[in-house]
Amino acid sequence: MNQNPTLDTLLSHRSIRRFEETPIPDGDVRLAVAAGQQASTSSNVQAYSLLRIRDADRLAKLVELTGGQAKVARCGAFFVVCGDTRRHRLLAERAELPYETRLEGFLVAAIDATLFAQNLCVAFESMGYGICYIGGLRNDLAAVQKLLRFPRGVYPLFGLCVGKPAEDPALRPRLAPEAVLFEEHYPDDETLLAGVRDYDASMREYYAARGAAAASWSEKIEAQFRQAYRTSVADYYRDQGADLT
Amino acid sequence: MNQNPTLDTLLSHRSIRRFEETPIPDGDVRLAVAAGQQASTSSNVQAYSLLRIRDADRLAKLVELTGGQAKVARCGAFFVVCGDTRRHRLLAERAELPYETRLEGFLVAAIDATLFAQNLCVAFESMGYGICYIGGLRNDLAAVQKLLRFPRGVYPLFGLCVGKPAEDPALRPRLAPEAVLFEEHYPDDETLLAGVRDYDASMREYYAARGAAAASWSEKIEAQFRQAYRTSVADYYRDQGADLT
Repeated sequence: MNQNPTLDTLLSHRSIRRFEETPIPDGDVRLAVAAGQQASTSSNVQAYSLLRIRDADRLAKLVELTGGQAKVARCGAFFVVCGDTRRHRLLAERAELPYETRLEGFLVAAIDATLFAQNLCVAFESMGYGICYIGGLRNDLAAVQKLLRFPRGVYPLFGLCVGKPAEDPALRPRLAPEAVLFEEHYPDDETLLAGVRDYDASMREYYAARGAAAASWSEKIEAQFRQAYRTSVADYYRDQGADLT
Repeated sequence: MNQNPTLDTLLSHRSIRRFEETPIPDGDVRLAVAAGQQASTSSNVQAYSLLRIRDADRLAKLVELTGGQAKVARCGAFFVVCGDTRRHRLLAERAELPYETRLEGFLVAAIDATLFAQNLCVAFESMGYGICYIGGLRNDLAAVQKLLRFPRGVYPLFGLCVGKPAEDPALRPRLAPEAVLFEEHYPDDETLLAGVRDYDASMREYYAARGAAAASWSEKIEAQFRQAYRTSVADYYRDQGADLT
């Protein structure tokens, strides 16, 4: 199978962290949203929504809440991607049916929202924009809630910066496909760690060229376990109405 | 902004439920996996893996476990998409660090795996294949576990059928973009339900043309609340090592 323009778009993705600040026209956003919506959705529930934030004060506050990520206020459009079960809860209530979703309901919303978001991003990238997901939105969801006041049933999952790239970073190497795709059975721990050693070797160069703090991927992963991290995410989603049982 | 080939791929997606059974060549799978891997990943953790199942007995059993979906055994390739934190746990253990992930760790794996999966699907579609996500994999995860024996730290999320389409279904209409994209603030309940009424009207035709049981989207959503549904998903993921707190 030869390359095609869609594969070119997918294979040339790297996150962009410096953007031109010209606002993205509504027509482009609408087209990308429509492309996002055409992604698969579990039993067609479409359990997601997208909030665009333009207000300068709110963006300044979000820069702070995402850990000082200036790009949140300096891009062509900043969005919050949300799992959204609000419509479904309203319909259940209207029909006087019990609204019992368990973890499955939350998971469907998270998966649906992510399928939508990835199509949205690929659409933007195909139009010449760059993107960066902002997982830092989950650093302090209670404070984000005070600022943006998501209704019950809406679960903000991550932020998204979009805009014309003002930098041209190299692609970041990934694990080898053989370390991710398995046939019939999973490999043993030793095989898995051998794959990590190979990847560490390829990432060492990448990190060194960028003067990164970590010397290898292993070190970077280990660093994540050196301190407690986003420990109240579940509490927040439960407050928003999620049943995580 | 005009159309481009990538937008055409995204906007022409509909799930395929009848496939040619010719196995997809390994080269095509590898290319699609590489395109999937180039999707964004939270802090580069790459918390996912993909299991291809070819064994006829296992596929027959999976048809049953997903609710009698014959296509699981009758497609070009059947995969299970997994959130996968196994590598990270092994690295934490090797470095004698506490492996504490809370809900955040599970959520990152679910989001990472879904970003990967959607890129994978778009890649396959750009190559002329059709795809169908199989959420029915979560109907009875304990039985799927007995069959496929996922290691601890691996969280099977959904199945995926891929193959040359043996049908040409119409696109399924989605909610209007205005019902999904909001600016600064969420609408009130009445506005949300007005959007549902509009969508019900457009879906009524779609369902009627297909002789579907539901007369509208609302009815279809309500039907989901008429019986308890996948109630032990959380128990299964906890048994696999997920911390959902």
